[in-house]
Amino acid sequence: MAEGVKLSDEQRIDWLRLIRSDNIGPRTFRDLINHFGGAAAALQALPGLARRGGAARPGRIATREEAEAEMKAARARGIVFVALGEPDYPLRLQMIDDPPPLLAVRGNLAILNRPLVAVVGSRNASAAGAKFAQALAHDLGVAQFGIVSGLARGIDAAAHRGSLATGTVAVLAGGHDRPYPPENVDLLESIVAEGAAVSEMPLAWEPRARDFPRRNRLISGLALGVVIVEAARRSGSLITARFAGEQGREVFAVPGNPLDPRAEGTNGLIKQGATLTTGAADVIAVLEPILGRGIEVPPAREPEAVGPAESEPGEDERARIVALLGPTPVAIDDLVRLSGAKPAIVRTVLLELEIAGRLERHGGALVSLV
Amino acid sequence: MAEGVKLSDEQRIDWLRLIRSDNIGPRTFRDLINHFGGAAAALQALPGLARRGGAARPGRIATREEAEAEMKAARARGIVFVALGEPDYPLRLQMIDDPPPLLAVRGNLAILNRPLVAVVGSRNASAAGAKFAQALAHDLGVAQFGIVSGLARGIDAAAHRGSLATGTVAVLAGGHDRPYPPENVDLLESIVAEGAAVSEMPLAWEPRARDFPRRNRLISGLALGVVIVEAARRSGSLITARFAGEQGREVFAVPGNPLDPRAEGTNGLIKQGATLTTGAADVIAVLEPILGRGIEVPPAREPEAVGPAESEPGEDERARIVALLGPTPVAIDDLVRLSGAKPAIVRTVLLELEIAGRLERHGGALVSLV
Repeated sequence: MAEGVKLSDEQRIDWLRLIRSDNIGPRTFRDLINHFGGAAAALQALPGLARRGGAARPGRIATREEAEAEMKAARARGIVFVALGEPDYPLRLQMIDDPPPLLAVRGNLAILNRPLVAVVGSRNASAAGAKFAQALAHDLGVAQFGIVSGLARGIDAAAHRGSLATGTVAVLAGGHDRPYPPENVDLLESIVAEGAAVSEMPLAWEPRARDFPRRNRLISGLALGVVIVEAARRSGSLITARFAGEQGREVFAVPGNPLDPRAEGTNGLIKQGATLTTGAADVIAVLEPILGRGIEVPPAREPEAVGPAESEPGEDERARIVALLGPTPVAIDDLVRLSGAKPAIVRTVLLELEIAGRLERHGGALVSLV
Repeated sequence: MAEGVKLSDEQRIDWLRLIRSDNIGPRTFRDLINHFGGAAAALQALPGLARRGGAARPGRIATREEAEAEMKAARARGIVFVALGEPDYPLRLQMIDDPPPLLAVRGNLAILNRPLVAVVGSRNASAAGAKFAQALAHDLGVAQFGIVSGLARGIDAAAHRGSLATGTVAVLAGGHDRPYPPENVDLLESIVAEGAAVSEMPLAWEPRARDFPRRNRLISGLALGVVIVEAARRSGSLITARFAGEQGREVFAVPGNPLDPRAEGTNGLIKQGATLTTGAADVIAVLEPILGRGIEVPPAREPEAVGPAESEPGEDERARIVALLGPTPVAIDDLVRLSGAKPAIVRTVLLELEIAGRLERHGGALVSLV
């Protein structure tokens, strides 16, 4: 079942350096690996890319010493780094658009490859909502599902509590040394006894507001489906539901009284097609057939390098592509069409701009200049 | 728009006598009219039918004096009897399986042919549920829908209250002189100011438990759709929802917290396909296209009499058909097949048994001996 190849220690250090460098997110990481054939070559190429991309100030590249220090500190805390494509990397997470190249896992690694269900919801949960979440997580746990959530107050904490004995996964928005919120630190310790805590951020990373929506893609990405227990309009839980939809995961929502603002989001999800959920049976009925089908994962392999000859843009081409960009998001397909350049060339120019900190990526393959 | 022919005073008296006679429900009434061509002929035939059906004791036939007295009392109270097929008879109600032959209406008759929506739910409503029902009825009223409900405590009363100004219809389980529950008598008086109260029962009929589910078919039958606001499992509101489904009416349900037993019924309805409803817009979105389509009603006409020659069973046939019947419900189609008799003959024998008080009709054209 476990496919994929383990990175060498050397490669793992390079991967960590690359993902910890400025302007490198999961998507850029993948593009770089695809382009240069490996992290070591990408690290070497970074300064040149940033220069050609027109970086005002070259981004910082994580040093080998920093990466080794993070590895060592993690090891001391019992945290392992699982790399994309390795046998232990969660299969479903591997299939999202922007899987973290390295996942720092504390606790029971094996739980990540069990069938997982996310249970999330409001921080200011009602007593009924929290009670429901805990019971639902318990019942799904008894049915052999691991429970993923975000360690937040309210629904998340209740979901973890309901599944401590059967196995639960807390996905952190910050690093393992900065669990949030502080009041749930004891809960986190109970979680890692049987389950696990995971993070894509550096150990000491203090989570910022925008790290929470980013983290939510991992909650849905790890799971077969996401149950939203309570959610106000425009709440973080709805972001998780949106990610779940984009990632092709099942979305479940618990109904509530229309006069309760905490039910606005969940009732809205049901109207949009989420499965109305009043208990574990509703979730199991949808997920069991999916489990039966198994997961098809493309065989993991070291990506092949694309020769510079094929994808190195000329100065003209670069200028033409940059000229097409502005503050308004534009589709990458349109850039290819309008510039007349090969897709590989356009991707290279975008990579340069990104590493120079000048490009912003939006959903749906849209990009804009910063 | 208003089609159909008015009954003569004489015919109306005969209709009232026939429907007020023992063992005659709306379905039997229709069968008798179809068979004998009119109420007067049916009344004459009743004793013979009951005898042939093997009545232990012949059922009571309402006298002309009784019918005239009921007419007179009704007139004194401002109540009119609208007969099936008359121009004022509610078009949608005419299309259900078992429309009341005579509908006693108090108040504003015209409201019955406006587009109506039923809003029903638990008697022991939550404060939030009652508030929601009242607001929903108000908003639907503003959108030109009349609101139908059952005058019960809780959700029904709230729905009437929310639509007093725009028009609301109370369907009574008993007679007009026995409104139930007593605490809503004042509300009823406010209802008939702008809207109406309707009943198929004699004026002084004290409603029994089984009259409430029977009444519920009229609530759904009058309406384009039924909104269930709160409903426990196995509650009367779910009976109304079932009637609505059988009658081809839209079913709407208001979601609630799964831990609230009053939401068990409504959440269940949504799972089964009812439209999740959090406000009037959800109802209007479904009903507006239906309104646009108009209603197709078969032209009302006096049914033609079937000659006795064609449908008078011989003794053999009668015995054969009765022998096929027992306490277990059996399909009328099967009776035709197994007896080898013509459908018209089978229907006549069933009519005789029914009038003799020996037949019970179940849903789906099933019958059994009492």
